[in-house]
Amino acid sequence: MTETAKRAARRRQGKLPGRQDWSTWPHYQAAAAGFRGYWYPVCFSDQVGEKPRKVRLLGEDLFVIRDDDGIFGMKDRCPHRGVPLSYGSKQFPGTVSCVYHGWTFQLQSGDLVAAITDGPQSPICRKVTQPTYDVEERLGMVWVYVGDGERPHPIDEQLPEELVGNSAVLGQRIQQRKGNWRFACENGYDEGHAKYLHRAALWRLFKPMPVWNTTKIVERGRWIYRVQEKQYWAAEFPGLGRWTGLAWYKAKPPKETGNIGNTSSHREVNPVIAAQEFPGFASVSMPGVLRIAYPTFIHYEFYVPVDADDHLYVGVMADFQKGLRTLPFYAKYLGAVRWLFHGQFSGQDKWMVEVTDAPPERLYRPDESLLRWRKLAEDTTEDRLDRLRTQGIAPAAPADPTA
Amino acid sequence: MTETAKRAARRRQGKLPGRQDWSTWPHYQAAAAGFRGYWYPVCFSDQVGEKPRKVRLLGEDLFVIRDDDGIFGMKDRCPHRGVPLSYGSKQFPGTVSCVYHGWTFQLQSGDLVAAITDGPQSPICRKVTQPTYDVEERLGMVWVYVGDGERPHPIDEQLPEELVGNSAVLGQRIQQRKGNWRFACENGYDEGHAKYLHRAALWRLFKPMPVWNTTKIVERGRWIYRVQEKQYWAAEFPGLGRWTGLAWYKAKPPKETGNIGNTSSHREVNPVIAAQEFPGFASVSMPGVLRIAYPTFIHYEFYVPVDADDHLYVGVMADFQKGLRTLPFYAKYLGAVRWLFHGQFSGQDKWMVEVTDAPPERLYRPDESLLRWRKLAEDTTEDRLDRLRTQGIAPAAPADPTA
Amino acid sequence: MTETAKRAARRRQGKLPGRQDWSTWPHYQAAAAGFRGYWYPVCFSDQVGEKPRKVRLLGEDLFVIRDDDGIFGMKDRCPHRGVPLSYGSKQFPGTVSCVYHGWTFQLQSGDLVAAITDGPQSPICRKVTQPTYDVEERLGMVWVYVGDGERPHPIDEQLPEELVGNSAVLGQRIQQRKGNWRFACENGYDEGHAKYLHRAALWRLFKPMPVWNTTKIVERGRWIYRVQEKQYWAAEFPGLGRWTGLAWYKAKPPKETGNIGNTSSHREVNPVIAAQEFPGFASVSMPGVLRIAYPTFIHYEFYVPVDADDHLYVGVMADFQKGLRTLPFYAKYLGAVRWLFHGQFSGQDKWMVEVTDAPPERLYRPDESLLRWRKLAEDTTEDRLDRLRTQGIAPAAPADPTA
Repeated sequence: MTETAKRAARRRQGKLPGRQDWSTWPHYQAAAAGFRGYWYPVCFSDQVGEKPRKVRLLGEDLFVIRDDDGIFGMKDRCPHRGVPLSYGSKQFPGTVSCVYHGWTFQLQSGDLVAAITDGPQSPICRKVTQPTYDVEERLGMVWVYVGDGERPHPIDEQLPEELVGNSAVLGQRIQQRKGNWRFACENGYDEGHAKYLHRAALWRLFKPMPVWNTTKIVERGRWIYRVQEKQYWAAEFPGLGRWTGLAWYKAKPPKETGNIGNTSSHREVNPVIAAQEFPGFASVSMPGVLRIAYPTFIHYEFYVPVDADDHLYVGVMADFQKGLRTLPFYAKYLGAVRWLFHGQFSGQDKWMVEVTDAPPERLYRPDESLLRWRKLAEDTTEDRLDRLRTQGIAPAAPADPTA
Repeated sequence: MTETAKRAARRRQGKLPGRQDWSTWPHYQAAAAGFRGYWYPVCFSDQVGEKPRKVRLLGEDLFVIRDDDGIFGMKDRCPHRGVPLSYGSKQFPGTVSCVYHGWTFQLQSGDLVAAITDGPQSPICRKVTQPTYDVEERLGMVWVYVGDGERPHPIDEQLPEELVGNSAVLGQRIQQRKGNWRFACENGYDEGHAKYLHRAALWRLFKPMPVWNTTKIVERGRWIYRVQEKQYWAAEFPGLGRWTGLAWYKAKPPKETGNIGNTSSHREVNPVIAAQEFPGFASVSMPGVLRIAYPTFIHYEFYVPVDADDHLYVGVMADFQKGLRTLPFYAKYLGAVRWLFHGQFSGQDKWMVEVTDAPPERLYRPDESLLRWRKLAEDTTEDRLDRLRTQGIAPAAPADPTA
Repeated sequence: MTETAKRAARRRQGKLPGRQDWSTWPHYQAAAAGFRGYWYPVCFSDQVGEKPRKVRLLGEDLFVIRDDDGIFGMKDRCPHRGVPLSYGSKQFPGTVSCVYHGWTFQLQSGDLVAAITDGPQSPICRKVTQPTYDVEERLGMVWVYVGDGERPHPIDEQLPEELVGNSAVLGQRIQQRKGNWRFACENGYDEGHAKYLHRAALWRLFKPMPVWNTTKIVERGRWIYRVQEKQYWAAEFPGLGRWTGLAWYKAKPPKETGNIGNTSSHREVNPVIAAQEFPGFASVSMPGVLRIAYPTFIHYEFYVPVDADDHLYVGVMADFQKGLRTLPFYAKYLGAVRWLFHGQFSGQDKWMVEVTDAPPERLYRPDESLLRWRKLAEDTTEDRLDRLRTQGIAPAAPADPTA
């Protein structure tokens, strides 16, 4: 091979370096539109009333509606002529009627109980059943279960443990964002980007971050934790120069530079958070939930697949206080966290999630956290499919197998 | 099969109920972009002058243009380099010249009679013929025939009979709308939706409708009529409650509740309409024409396929009066019909046509009218294809065979 | 076959007349996104600074950036997670760092020299090389070479000869336009359209054009010239009428009507242009460069493929003057040429390039110029591929083989 040909081979744009697909994790690869068999938050509770509210979740179109007996979910497509039922309205208690011909479905069962324009003896009554969804309310939000017809697990078994049975004050943001939910989740749990991408975010005035650190991933129950072992606050890159995220106008890093989990010595720590005995800073669980334990509050992000192209960002800040002790939280949330963290800081993540384009991808050492998250998703899904098989249930094909 | 598996099967979203496709009516299924072999209204007569006017019809791009000898239609794509001829202009009488290189086509024959930029002896002259369209003017509108090269039937054989040879005053609206023309036509002839979808339309203040009724479909000549047999003005739905479209502020229903065709006893009826001896209220004919005979006027809707995605709504209100007796018509049309009927009422139909998504579809008893319309379209098309075959003509493939 | 069937065959819209594809020129047909192995102008020199500037060229995404050592080009996609490197910034001299995780690439070599968030000893350093592009500056513009890894030829061998080593004053416009670059180039070199399409352009007040003329194509070096032999300033089209592009308010045509190349007798001719001894008016060379030699200046158009759908129009007016003699040029360019020629006149071409839709196409006599241009492109490309093969280089597949 001539020098020119070698040069050609080196500079050719064809084959991209690194991993060409995600076939190492086939379930994860197939889950472009999300993992089935979970509860997902879709909106705030006070956004659902007696009029149907359209929801798109895991590529499925449904609506939620409130009735005297609670909140119900139903597939949005009227089987008669395909018109969205969410354009309809409630003509009789406990039902919804399609706007076009008045086909009337029972919210509880999905049964067609009347076709108004064909009279009370319409032969089609009770011959059609519209698919329904299980719906719950938690944390001031409406949660919908998307499965394959199996009986849903209790939602409290899926929520972060400390949010069940403890009283907490919450600051929340729900925002639809472009980009696949997996990029959002990988971005959230990603070890590396926060130190560089967010270096100029205002939130970083209060939250110093090292240039780099060593990490280990620890599994505990449904969660995998990312534990920083040794942190380096400045670094000299040979032949290039020195780099640091610190500045005289920013908060100083903690004295000890070991396990940042040991931050309990700094200030008064909320007992619920302390009771967690968290071994690390950030943790993630299925079906795409990030938990970041700060000394005095916990921040959560739920990445909810709308479909393969869009996701809901649901950010929750929880402080486990009661009564008068909740007042400083509201001041802190409304005065700073909402704008600096759920706003500008998270807006930089939003930007990256929109433009990430992988695979192909060439991972590096800090991406160990991504690999472990993908393995968690893969193993958990394999277990679920085993359970379905023993119940004789064939799971639905993924909504978008190409992505 | 376990209970859970049964639940899974019942709630699974996979297979939709009812009819999965329209293969029962293969010609109808293939006619997403319309039926060939008919005259279609495309615009008002006064919209066509000496400049070419672009028209899209049955997925074909053409233009119409007026000359001393009448109106002509021609395929819009210049064969030289594919530039639209409708960007061109008239340089010599009876011709149109392409804007790009001055290729000049005779309107009557489609023959290339000059290529200006290659001089009078250009060897390409008379070597190229551009496809032309037959064009007629009726009812103040321009009509174009789309066929397969056969000699068109006279347009008067296709127009509603009473519109040929009778003097009538007309109120008209032409509007391009989203959605397939078949949904528009099925919506127009549909027995069921008017009673429910339009229940709050202002037009319904003057036009009472029953909750439901029994119907029979009667064929007469080119038309099939929908005859209401027994009407029910209120109904009690077991376990749900009572429902009625009546209200104290709305017009009352007629005394007799039998064949609504017998409305001639109510008021003075226009003799042309009476001469129709219509056995029912609404009728439909190919290639998608709806006729609704009111006691004192007739309303028509022509559903004109632009392509598989869009259609023209052409609404015509005709009153068979002359001279001074036309004045009340104009008052009625401009004061009420145009806004309430061609406007708000028809706007609700427009909305449904946009969002209808069938097949799959699960039809119910009142959809007998749809089934009969589809059968009419199927049989009529079969007859036409037989005629073409005897003339040695192979019809064009449908413009969009997928829809 | 009956008369009706013949009529059907004649009027059928199915098969279009003329050439159905460009398979006569397979390389040209495959070059929807441009020909590889050439330098292309992408922006003005003063548009490139220390921030990366995104460029799309031949369907490839890259960026250009200025450093102390010159201008560099690099593929825009970070191999880590696919984020555009053009969102990044310069953290160390001679490098660019990805905005997401701080992956840092050397501009000169493309080598990954640091991954900031993984520390100075990151094992991935020097394991990844980002493809780079050769970049040069000429005529106040930045030029990028797109090849297959071979050593680029010197840019001066590709520029129009008279622009190398001669001092000239330039008036320039760079504009991104819709439409394939081949339609732009064919439009530029096309003999026929100028006389008709531009008949009402203000530029034509000063530039008379015949109705038609005879032409011969002359090859000289890298260029093929279009030589007008006999010009006809008016013509009588039999059965239609007389047509001319002249008018009392327009400039008169030259006295002699032979070879328009002999315009040197009219006025003082710039010696550089005269030295060209151009045998004709318009010439074209690879990879899509038009040169129109006016008596006192030369106009160039570079048609730069952005991808198969868009191209850059780069218009350059050059006058080979120095010192005070440049002043009239600026007055002429800013006062007239920029608005009338690079503006309105060229805007008519822009419109046609957008709507041209070929093949299919039915060419006519003046299209001899197009055929010769396509043959030039075909032969030149065949020669280049031969050279690559002897170097052991396999060229990349075209970016968009369908168009």
